[in-house]
Amino acid sequence: MKQQERFRVVLVEPEYELNVGAVARAMKNFGFSDLVFVRPKCNPKGFDAVKYAKHAKDVLAGARTAKTLAQATKGCKFSVGTTGILYRHWNETFRTPMKLKDLAGKIKGNKEGRVALVFGNEGIGLSEKDISSCDFLITIPTNKLYPILNLSHAVAIALYELSDYNLLGFEPAGEREKEALLDAFGLLTDRFGHEMRNPRKVKIAFRRMVGKAMLTDKECASILGVLRRTNTELEKRR
Amino acid sequence: MKQQERFRVVLVEPEYELNVGAVARAMKNFGFSDLVFVRPKCNPKGFDAVKYAKHAKDVLAGARTAKTLAQATKGCKFSVGTTGILYRHWNETFRTPMKLKDLAGKIKGNKEGRVALVFGNEGIGLSEKDISSCDFLITIPTNKLYPILNLSHAVAIALYELSDYNLLGFEPAGEREKEALLDAFGLLTDRFGHEMRNPRKVKIAFRRMVGKAMLTDKECASILGVLRRTNTELEKRR
Repeated sequence: MKQQERFRVVLVEPEYELNVGAVARAMKNFGFSDLVFVRPKCNPKGFDAVKYAKHAKDVLAGARTAKTLAQATKGCKFSVGTTGILYRHWNETFRTPMKLKDLAGKIKGNKEGRVALVFGNEGIGLSEKDISSCDFLITIPTNKLYPILNLSHAVAIALYELSDYNLLGFEPAGEREKEALLDAFGLLTDRFGHEMRNPRKVKIAFRRMVGKAMLTDKECASILGVLRRTNTELEKRR
Repeated sequence: MKQQERFRVVLVEPEYELNVGAVARAMKNFGFSDLVFVRPKCNPKGFDAVKYAKHAKDVLAGARTAKTLAQATKGCKFSVGTTGILYRHWNETFRTPMKLKDLAGKIKGNKEGRVALVFGNEGIGLSEKDISSCDFLITIPTNKLYPILNLSHAVAIALYELSDYNLLGFEPAGEREKEALLDAFGLLTDRFGHEMRNPRKVKIAFRRMVGKAMLTDKECASILGVLRRTNTELEKRR
């Protein structure tokens, strides 16, 4: 099972089609597809929902509607509630939210079982009852002056944190490639060493630059190509 | 300077008021306030922008408009362009985007100077020229089937990653508090040790539970209060 396939996004009583559509889009952006609505207060497949889903119409089309949160999370090993309001839950349900980042770390460490991510209504969030039925409560740390995120922003940030994409084709250069690059530059430097004040320092500067630049394998190979050709050419002319 | 005050959000040719408003909201959610538009294609302080900014109308009101990207990033030590399209830039400008997370790590490590975060138009992103003028290029790793994020989602995720809020009032319990809790439970266990098969294992189970639970200071103190009272009470009745 791919990491993303483990997750179900559950929207409880979503109110605006725009948000529902934007949630579907964010899901597809990060590779998620299992979407369930509980008692939606809008038509979650209506005109605006479809419009704002953009190229994620398939996610929206595949979404289901459930009558209760329990129905929506059926088949999930555990469910994660989300909240932007910290103190209320602290006082009323004595429940401390985890940071999203900490939950992501835990979930990636333990790869078993389906997980429901439960998001509440735009205006009032999840009810105390819904929160009580969740196994975890998480929050996205925000500015206390305005802690309430837009629903689709909260979903997008959660899915960003829970997905784990590499930049395809942009793998960082390995140690061997980097050493080859340093060697080639070192050879070049040595050729002009007699003209330079401190060739060793120049090599160190180059090494530092390569270290800081976080080169990809492609970049490393292409720069190496130039240096090697230069060395070969200089060798010929010697 | 607070971490967030270092950052300026620059929107180049934003097209939809809704997105501009949602960006202002996300900025306030994460404690950012410096917003600049370059050649906006909508009225960035129009009715819908104000509506979707919700409680971040102050961020919108304080935003400036610039004619060029260079004007917009004036006073910034470096500017960071954003892109969702990896291969185009690879081929045309030979520019490798960094992952947002890697940039965030770099910036947090080096606390000097103002940083402009530059986001392009909803439809076409940043132009090659705009990207060339940025010092860094970053991307939010997404699903290659649908890599293009909604503009305000991209901003929200970037600001989430670059802000660093603690959950106020929810500090993790310190080692001393946790030890006190283990001691109190240990004392209780010892009282019934003669009735139990393996009291040592029970203590280990409790220690593990405390370790996994990531208790906050408040939770730890409140549970400790109960255990201490129980021990005192049992002591009296002895």
